[in-house]
Amino acid sequence: MTDVTATGTALEVTASDLTLEEKASLTSGASFWYTKPIERVGVPAIMVTDGPHGLRKQRESGDHLGIGDSVPATCFPPAVGLGSSWDVELIHRVGEALGIETSIENVAVLLGPGINIKRSPLCGRNFEYLSEDPIVSGVLGAAIVNGIQSKGVGTSLKHFAANNQENDRMRASSDVDPRPLREIYLRGFQRVVEDAQPWTVMCSYNRINGVYASEDPWLLTQVLRDEWGFEGLVVSDWGAVNDRVVGLPAGLDLEMPSSNGVTDAQIVAAVREGSLGEEAVDVAADRVLDLVRKAQAGAGAVAGPLDVDAHHALAREAAGRSIVLLKNEGGVLPLAKDAKIAVIGEFAQKPRYQGAGSSMINPTRLDNALDEIRAAATGVVAYAPGFSNALQVSEEETASLRAEAVAAASTAEVAVVFLGLPARLESEGYDREDIDIPAAQLALLDAVLAANPNTVVVLSNGGVVALPFADRVPAILEGWLLGQAGGGATADVLFGDVNPSGKLTETIPERLEDTPAFLDFPGEFLHVRYGEGLYVGYRWYDVRRMGVTFPFGHGLSYTTFAYGDSNAAVDANGDVEVTVAVTNTGERAGREVVQVYTSLSGSAVQRAPRELKAFASVALEPGQTETVTLTVRRKDLAYWNVSADRWIVEGGEYTIEVAASSRDIRSNTTVAIVGDAFTLPLSRSSSLGEVMRHPIAGPIVQAAMAQMMGGLGDETASIMPEGVDMSKMMESFPIGRVGMMAGLAGGGEGVSEEMIDGLIAMANAAQG
Amino acid sequence: MTDVTATGTALEVTASDLTLEEKASLTSGASFWYTKPIERVGVPAIMVTDGPHGLRKQRESGDHLGIGDSVPATCFPPAVGLGSSWDVELIHRVGEALGIETSIENVAVLLGPGINIKRSPLCGRNFEYLSEDPIVSGVLGAAIVNGIQSKGVGTSLKHFAANNQENDRMRASSDVDPRPLREIYLRGFQRVVEDAQPWTVMCSYNRINGVYASEDPWLLTQVLRDEWGFEGLVVSDWGAVNDRVVGLPAGLDLEMPSSNGVTDAQIVAAVREGSLGEEAVDVAADRVLDLVRKAQAGAGAVAGPLDVDAHHALAREAAGRSIVLLKNEGGVLPLAKDAKIAVIGEFAQKPRYQGAGSSMINPTRLDNALDEIRAAATGVVAYAPGFSNALQVSEEETASLRAEAVAAASTAEVAVVFLGLPARLESEGYDREDIDIPAAQLALLDAVLAANPNTVVVLSNGGVVALPFADRVPAILEGWLLGQAGGGATADVLFGDVNPSGKLTETIPERLEDTPAFLDFPGEFLHVRYGEGLYVGYRWYDVRRMGVTFPFGHGLSYTTFAYGDSNAAVDANGDVEVTVAVTNTGERAGREVVQVYTSLSGSAVQRAPRELKAFASVALEPGQTETVTLTVRRKDLAYWNVSADRWIVEGGEYTIEVAASSRDIRSNTTVAIVGDAFTLPLSRSSSLGEVMRHPIAGPIVQAAMAQMMGGLGDETASIMPEGVDMSKMMESFPIGRVGMMAGLAGGGEGVSEEMIDGLIAMANAAQG
Repeated sequence: MTDVTATGTALEVTASDLTLEEKASLTSGASFWYTKPIERVGVPAIMVTDGPHGLRKQRESGDHLGIGDSVPATCFPPAVGLGSSWDVELIHRVGEALGIETSIENVAVLLGPGINIKRSPLCGRNFEYLSEDPIVSGVLGAAIVNGIQSKGVGTSLKHFAANNQENDRMRASSDVDPRPLREIYLRGFQRVVEDAQPWTVMCSYNRINGVYASEDPWLLTQVLRDEWGFEGLVVSDWGAVNDRVVGLPAGLDLEMPSSNGVTDAQIVAAVREGSLGEEAVDVAADRVLDLVRKAQAGAGAVAGPLDVDAHHALAREAAGRSIVLLKNEGGVLPLAKDAKIAVIGEFAQKPRYQGAGSSMINPTRLDNALDEIRAAATGVVAYAPGFSNALQVSEEETASLRAEAVAAASTAEVAVVFLGLPARLESEGYDREDIDIPAAQLALLDAVLAANPNTVVVLSNGGVVALPFADRVPAILEGWLLGQAGGGATADVLFGDVNPSGKLTETIPERLEDTPAFLDFPGEFLHVRYGEGLYVGYRWYDVRRMGVTFPFGHGLSYTTFAYGDSNAAVDANGDVEVTVAVTNTGERAGREVVQVYTSLSGSAVQRAPRELKAFASVALEPGQTETVTLTVRRKDLAYWNVSADRWIVEGGEYTIEVAASSRDIRSNTTVAIVGDAFTLPLSRSSSLGEVMRHPIAGPIVQAAMAQMMGGLGDETASIMPEGVDMSKMMESFPIGRVGMMAGLAGGGEGVSEEMIDGLIAMANAAQG
Repeated sequence: MTDVTATGTALEVTASDLTLEEKASLTSGASFWYTKPIERVGVPAIMVTDGPHGLRKQRESGDHLGIGDSVPATCFPPAVGLGSSWDVELIHRVGEALGIETSIENVAVLLGPGINIKRSPLCGRNFEYLSEDPIVSGVLGAAIVNGIQSKGVGTSLKHFAANNQENDRMRASSDVDPRPLREIYLRGFQRVVEDAQPWTVMCSYNRINGVYASEDPWLLTQVLRDEWGFEGLVVSDWGAVNDRVVGLPAGLDLEMPSSNGVTDAQIVAAVREGSLGEEAVDVAADRVLDLVRKAQAGAGAVAGPLDVDAHHALAREAAGRSIVLLKNEGGVLPLAKDAKIAVIGEFAQKPRYQGAGSSMINPTRLDNALDEIRAAATGVVAYAPGFSNALQVSEEETASLRAEAVAAASTAEVAVVFLGLPARLESEGYDREDIDIPAAQLALLDAVLAANPNTVVVLSNGGVVALPFADRVPAILEGWLLGQAGGGATADVLFGDVNPSGKLTETIPERLEDTPAFLDFPGEFLHVRYGEGLYVGYRWYDVRRMGVTFPFGHGLSYTTFAYGDSNAAVDANGDVEVTVAVTNTGERAGREVVQVYTSLSGSAVQRAPRELKAFASVALEPGQTETVTLTVRRKDLAYWNVSADRWIVEGGEYTIEVAASSRDIRSNTTVAIVGDAFTLPLSRSSSLGEVMRHPIAGPIVQAAMAQMMGGLGDETASIMPEGVDMSKMMESFPIGRVGMMAGLAGGGEGVSEEMIDGLIAMANAAQG
């Protein structure tokens, strides 16, 4: 098949040079991974491939289904790990490396990053996503896109949108109210589009409030292009097309994979019979041609071959930055290299380092922690697998593995126990049913702890797991899925060659029953009600004042950090500059992820007690102090006003919390924000409360109300005992119905309908 | 004004005898409380009045707003109290008494009962409602209606529907998904309509999923009449009409109160210009005439004057049955009549006995607990108000009241402390902002407890309050609002002349933050998302495994009850008969409220861990055993199938729990239920999982899938490591998209679109 590198000169063809059939043909794939060429006018095919934490380029000899063996590529930590670094610079570098590998393999677009919100820990694909918070997802997602695209290849921001589960993903409707949709589920996508202009956006399989993402003009055109200014191409997730004649004019430019020409013919027929305008086909075809042009322009930007060693080293650095030190009581970690160590747990030798499904990379190498620990240290006394992740394990085998592990632990000074989720428990395509580590592993840990309380747990899991042992184990490393160099990185952190600096981008809850989406995940009858609304992740635990095992933003270091007083001021752009001095008060160099949360007490709308708005990763030598500046964008303070159908920044005195985690606030300040000038027009259904707060109508109606209430006099006492708040009762009475009530009270000479309509018209006119 | 008693003979006129103007005029009120007469054809006006725990008939001299002074009537316990009896027989008797008072006053319809679900404890009008559970609301609501209507007068079942808050009640939309709407919010209304045929149903102010209840043909006609068989009239809540030309054909028969002819003229104009069919006016007018006929037939059924003493005695009996003994550690209660008692708390002398708003009765008498305790006992040493419910209380006054109370408590053997909510904190028309008893009262209690730990708390509150002192006080009586004879009833229970038997019809939560609707009550932007879905009240606390202060169904007695084994069997009607032997194992006669909960493990749909389906109130002498039979109706086992848009009874082995409360299960059994025969037709969007479970299509597709999966062979290993569940991944794949995937896999010779369509057609045809 021709591919983009086969063409010499820049493509000058546009849709107007093509026949209807040719244009339609451009808007769907030639196969699983290629777009269609048009040899008549020299349009080459371009190749796109799965990712995004590495390149999954299928070998030419592979099948037609897209799941065959792929060429080796560096397997960097999946998003769940990389995101825990909270580090834009690091993630940009990993993005560059991904772009280099993509370019070397002549691939035009790497299909990622995935930035969907982790609504429930049960989502089988959470390992591919960054956070439960839209600012983390958006800022880090933009860093990946910018990194990859700096190497002349494209990305595909996915899965757009509200695709937060695998169960029934091709049919279910995510039923989300406007504020959570805008403020939680779309905000990260908006950030990446505005800050990084990904070459493509991939629409998701699911429906949103009943409409397929692949057919939703509001989503794909009004929001994505008209509001956010997206300039690239929208591609379907593989197989996400339901009805392409509906999807194309809605804004779906490219169907993937191939439909064997079936849907192209539908497009042509629809244009011929007049139910689809040809200009919609032109627009989509031109966007495909634009993408081909970008691919041509970038092709060959990087010369091969791949520097496997350098990329493996970067993968190790990134993995070390992905690890989160959850607990370290009594300074158990780092371990001395000559300590007598028992390494326990099958994951130490057979690492869980990435998740199953379309993102699964064929790594260039694969470290394991056991070998790396042995290489780094002199004191390893024993290794015991402790349990088996095989599907069928006999009771005898389980008992024998456990006994061997206990024996190993009891002879050691410290036991390092590797626990986690077997690969089959989390995958693209289906969700988990619980958040538990398998019982056999928990039983093993209990037995090891009984033999040796000086035990460190290292976790391997893509989705959050419950940690019922958190109180009983002195030290816990959350290793997530760390990619091909995770084994070495784990050794680096265990022995202090790397000082851990990762922090949680998602809450670790105490129980599945505590989680916000527990009652409507994965939904039923093809509908998923996002009943928790705005209160996703830490927003939920905070507003309901619930305990958690480890909060959002949490992560320890082998050193300690002190925060000075913080300052906040509005800058020339209207953004808020927050400054705080952070000091490394310990003995080792380290990194701190400084977080800024905002809130507005007395807000006119619902808000979480705190919302993350900015963060920074700061490297500090022992004793070093740095004044960190973090910018809270004014637009990130906005809420989605449902009545006005637009973003509004509410004026007021905002609280700014500078924090080491969402539950470890180190410094507080406030900043006065001038709100957006905005008054909703009055109507007959405006409440008396709304009218009374209106700058023009308010004083008039307040005077009239006082007169009317006075007229009621003592009569009200019969149903309104002392202290009952009549004004509160009247507050939500629609002004359009006041005439009737006043008429009854006054025998018809009260407030006329004309007076009410006149007041409304006058007030609205005065507001412009 | 003519009223119904002024007419001698039965009315024979129908809509066909009337002019359009006359018909239209019948469909709205003449004033606040009267329908319109048509003297030309002898149609009298009839009077309707507020209730429902007494008659609020405005004096003739009153104002035109309907809030003037009313004639004295017996104030029975409001619904929050009466419902706590869980006793159909008692409630029927109270209903009869209400009917008698209504009839004596020549009133045709008493505007009640209110049976809305207590979705949040914050709803300002919860005191007018029965329960957080639809079976309790429905069964007890039917008992009230049957009792009242047995005396020849009518009722108005209200507020139909999903009117679960006061905030913005005239504008807000209750956004409720189909299952909670049907299974929680409408189920009680359905029960009352089917079991008791109220003369009228009152539509609520609010919108439901965007549509005003007063304009909703689905609600007022399809559900209410076509599905449930309602035969009466639909009246608007007072002022609930938004657009009567829309409301009338939707099923709103009568607008109240008067619109001064404005909306009648709109109806006439709409018919004349052809936008409204005259037959809709005929239907509504005929329903008004039917109501007048019923009123005529019932008029004069009861001869006055009212036996004030007998009704006061019934009010005392009902109040005694309304009190819930929440806690009685060490048998502090009942008190000895010669014990040295300090009575503390302003509520003892100035009772809170009903709520503010349209239900507020002008009582024939008013007991207070202090006088009644003094009359019953010999040992009262002192009374101290302890705090003041006045709006403004100085610190000095508060301190002095407290000191006086502490002094009283310290000289007594037992302190009885009356705490509760001041009248201003709960009312029709606005909601509460917290569930706290005022801080001054809590501080008083702490001071009293320090002086005398032998303290009994008696509560007066319409909505649930948090009880932060529950662990520290040995005995607590929840007295709710008890009506005019509550003072005597409280004394009866304190001294054991009445053995308490009330149980909670709503959960007492630990904190407001724990409550199911906490995050979206009262909503914003005119929308209230019922995000907790099916999980209202105890269903929420159970499914999330949360602690509560006192669970739904809880209530103690001065005696004890033992439960034998239970049995359950399907009877000839398909209902489940549950039998259990209950024994009074204590020394006093008492009543036990026996509860039956059901569940179905492995259900295909979401279900709460347990749902109340039947209950019975049983009186037992000491040592007496009675075998109680409770009927779980088959239709109450049904869930609302959203895809099929109908009720479905799922087959399976149901667990039957016989319980003293929702968290005090005394006996378990199971019963096998044969499910409704029902198979959803297949379509191209049916999932492979659904197709494979289909009786006809399943075997065919299973065979084909096995072949296809086999063909994939080892290729899948590259993205699907060992144990990943491919069948789980395919489960939710729509069959309509299989052709494309199979075509790619097999190069076009796989599964054709025609084969898929043929399979679907064949399978559906075979199912009929």
